[in-house]
Amino acid sequence: MKYLAILLLFIPLSFIGDYLDMDDSLIFVTACIAIVPLAVLISDATEQIAIYTGSKIGGLLNATMGNIPEFFIGLFGLQAGLHQLVLASMAGSIMGNIMFVLGVSIFCGGLVHSTQTFDKTIARSNFSLLCFAAISLIVPLAFKLTNDNPAKLDQGLAVISLSIALILLVIYVMGLVFSLIMQKNLFLEHDSDDYEKRAKWSLPHAIGLLAIASFLVAIESELLISKVEAAVRDLQLPELFIGIIIVPILGNVAEHTSAILMAMRNKIDISVEIAVGSSMQIAMFVAPLLILISFAMGHPLTYVYEPFEVIAVITGILLSLYVFQDGKTYWLEGALLTFTYVVFCVAFFYK
Amino acid sequence: MKYLAILLLFIPLSFIGDYLDMDDSLIFVTACIAIVPLAVLISDATEQIAIYTGSKIGGLLNATMGNIPEFFIGLFGLQAGLHQLVLASMAGSIMGNIMFVLGVSIFCGGLVHSTQTFDKTIARSNFSLLCFAAISLIVPLAFKLTNDNPAKLDQGLAVISLSIALILLVIYVMGLVFSLIMQKNLFLEHDSDDYEKRAKWSLPHAIGLLAIASFLVAIESELLISKVEAAVRDLQLPELFIGIIIVPILGNVAEHTSAILMAMRNKIDISVEIAVGSSMQIAMFVAPLLILISFAMGHPLTYVYEPFEVIAVITGILLSLYVFQDGKTYWLEGALLTFTYVVFCVAFFYK
Amino acid sequence: MKYLAILLLFIPLSFIGDYLDMDDSLIFVTACIAIVPLAVLISDATEQIAIYTGSKIGGLLNATMGNIPEFFIGLFGLQAGLHQLVLASMAGSIMGNIMFVLGVSIFCGGLVHSTQTFDKTIARSNFSLLCFAAISLIVPLAFKLTNDNPAKLDQGLAVISLSIALILLVIYVMGLVFSLIMQKNLFLEHDSDDYEKRAKWSLPHAIGLLAIASFLVAIESELLISKVEAAVRDLQLPELFIGIIIVPILGNVAEHTSAILMAMRNKIDISVEIAVGSSMQIAMFVAPLLILISFAMGHPLTYVYEPFEVIAVITGILLSLYVFQDGKTYWLEGALLTFTYVVFCVAFFYK
Repeated sequence: MKYLAILLLFIPLSFIGDYLDMDDSLIFVTACIAIVPLAVLISDATEQIAIYTGSKIGGLLNATMGNIPEFFIGLFGLQAGLHQLVLASMAGSIMGNIMFVLGVSIFCGGLVHSTQTFDKTIARSNFSLLCFAAISLIVPLAFKLTNDNPAKLDQGLAVISLSIALILLVIYVMGLVFSLIMQKNLFLEHDSDDYEKRAKWSLPHAIGLLAIASFLVAIESELLISKVEAAVRDLQLPELFIGIIIVPILGNVAEHTSAILMAMRNKIDISVEIAVGSSMQIAMFVAPLLILISFAMGHPLTYVYEPFEVIAVITGILLSLYVFQDGKTYWLEGALLTFTYVVFCVAFFYK
Repeated sequence: MKYLAILLLFIPLSFIGDYLDMDDSLIFVTACIAIVPLAVLISDATEQIAIYTGSKIGGLLNATMGNIPEFFIGLFGLQAGLHQLVLASMAGSIMGNIMFVLGVSIFCGGLVHSTQTFDKTIARSNFSLLCFAAISLIVPLAFKLTNDNPAKLDQGLAVISLSIALILLVIYVMGLVFSLIMQKNLFLEHDSDDYEKRAKWSLPHAIGLLAIASFLVAIESELLISKVEAAVRDLQLPELFIGIIIVPILGNVAEHTSAILMAMRNKIDISVEIAVGSSMQIAMFVAPLLILISFAMGHPLTYVYEPFEVIAVITGILLSLYVFQDGKTYWLEGALLTFTYVVFCVAFFYK
Repeated sequence: MKYLAILLLFIPLSFIGDYLDMDDSLIFVTACIAIVPLAVLISDATEQIAIYTGSKIGGLLNATMGNIPEFFIGLFGLQAGLHQLVLASMAGSIMGNIMFVLGVSIFCGGLVHSTQTFDKTIARSNFSLLCFAAISLIVPLAFKLTNDNPAKLDQGLAVISLSIALILLVIYVMGLVFSLIMQKNLFLEHDSDDYEKRAKWSLPHAIGLLAIASFLVAIESELLISKVEAAVRDLQLPELFIGIIIVPILGNVAEHTSAILMAMRNKIDISVEIAVGSSMQIAMFVAPLLILISFAMGHPLTYVYEPFEVIAVITGILLSLYVFQDGKTYWLEGALLTFTYVVFCVAFFYK
């Protein structure tokens, strides 16, 4: 974790760069890097708070706070009118978790432990929700592509987007309430000792850190979004590629690291929970929340992803469903998931 | 069941309305409502007959008679040249059964009994056939959409439609023969005591009622079809919506009620059999029969569904396959199926 | 096997026909028929050699030599610039194995033995690879169809095709190395006694026969390719149909025969291994090798299959995945696979 502390230096660097009006694409890169340690800090602070609150509230906190970076990037993206970027970052986050994070975890875990087994029922409810999220991607796009009544297209898309966003949030909240009442967390939560968590910070300390890190992530997100156009122009990175590959990696570094470490300690269950759960929260909570906010803001964001994004997400979901179906994982399956992600990265770069 | 008897009043009402030349959309609504109790009556009478004939012939009867309303609506739709409506009602019936009927059954059953389990092998053969039916939807549409030889398109679609219709019927009849010979019914049939059937009518009484109800359903179907255009114009209901959502609900009320009741009595097996079996019979028997009749009538109906219909049906099949894969169901899965159906209803309304 | 020896007569017949400059479509037919016994001979000779080399090297040989006819037809097709035909023959070989060969095997096996069971884990690794191969079909096509940046389309397709070809070959070689080291063959290999192999030829005899048969297959493939245009014109067979249905059947006769015989002897495991393994080798080894060769030759063949071919292959993979999911097969599943193949044959004929 020490090397991550060094990355905190990029926070002041990005501010200085912005203040001195330096090259926009340079500021973009520093803001990108600065988000990484902040995302890890938010994750750490939330876990520390969870130790004090007990696992129920802790689970709720983890579910809510884990996606703060994605949420702020989405929010400022909406404000800046970068709707394609916001949607791409949602799709990319789902896809990155179930193909890249899972793939590397299974591959690394498989190299160390050969075949790894996990409890199928744990992953199942998250996967069910993820399948529904997949439908939320397919229906509006299919509606648009097969439309033959242009007069009603926009109205239809708005109604469909709002219905889907509301249904997703209702199911998400039903699931959370259900897990708080029933003790049994639907939205994954591993036993706390799996993580070998120890209270290293006091509660006020942890809350303070969480607040500061969240605030800084918001600022860096705004900075990043304001320089996206420069990055597209100067770094020759397509906007779609930034949205679907780069942004999700920034926000998910904490999840990436944990998932791989857990797989190498032969706790592939936790890797699966982290990756699938994280995808699911983006799809069931962050994305519909942003849709609702966009309607409230008056720039409605409809759920119409790029066709190729939908294909990437569906491919990822089907492939990971197939991999998990037998409750066993081995290195070859990890390699397949990872390579598939690489192929999609190449393809998105040339879009 | 008593409240259904009141609906029988809509039969004379629809006749009076038609005779007095009242508002067409009003007659449409009365004809729609009149079909509901008739469909239930046909279902009841068939079950009563099955008690006298024994379970073999009874299974055959159930399979054949259960879809009389769908068949007549399809037949008169063909005669009236409403090909899109006929296809939509087939797709809607498949989709409604595997998403709405199943979803509500699983949800209600899950609320009462938490997790419910069923014998996977029972549902499997019906699902196999349903998968084949899905292919019968995909191939002709894909053939049309990817066509680059317009000269051979119509001929190709006709040959493909006829081949598929014949193959579907051959497999259906093979399956029926197989189950009559082997005692083991491939096309679902639950033990008679599951339904707690008692002979409440004599055999001639039951046969008479079946004949009368079928005759009345035919008349109401013809009336309904003749007023569809008025309903589209006056009630602002798109024809596609009538075909894919309203018509299937009318014909399936009996199945809906039974499936939900069975789920709440913790007999989710029977709910699955009813819903999946009913979908399968539409796809394997009613639809191909209508195709063959349409060719005989000289207005060939090709198997080219609307792309969005195909997406809806495939989504329903994949989602229900996923739900049933582990032989367990719980309320969340029911909610997912039901909500997905709702999303599609909204989308079809705006098509 | 004796009747196959008679087909060897078509080898000289095709040469004589070519020498005497007879009707081109006649030479095409004789070359097609001549490939059948040669493919069987290559398969026999490889098995004989495997008896001497032991099962490790034997498995490697079988994997490499089994697709010699497909490879040569592909190679000469590339040289002649018949890119669509080459791609169609790859897609057709995958599709034919997992729908037709498997379907007929399961159907015949099911008629004799009712339900047949097999070890799910054996088929699983091949299926994993086949799923990845499916992705290799989908990504480039989806990239092309959703492209909105024509300037980068060709470059993108070339990079994606090369990346996919390299990744497929890397995974294939990793799998082979893995199986040679670990004793446990990832790429199918049944126990030798399952085949009841006996050394009927000496090693030099078998190697000699293999060399001669491969050489003759190369010549007949070249002849066949040179007469394809005449066959399209005179026999009214669409080029796509020749590529996707006829060519794969010629090269796979040996696999077809073995798979069906094994199923009827209640060794459905071996049928599954032959069919799925053969599909997988085409997808993971022959196709990417031909792509790399085409780039080396300077006429780059990109992985862009016809949309309808992709739909056929994906349908086949999903259907066979579903059939194998429970580790049991019965005649109805075989009938479904076979009939689906027939429907696609009809459709490809009318494309």
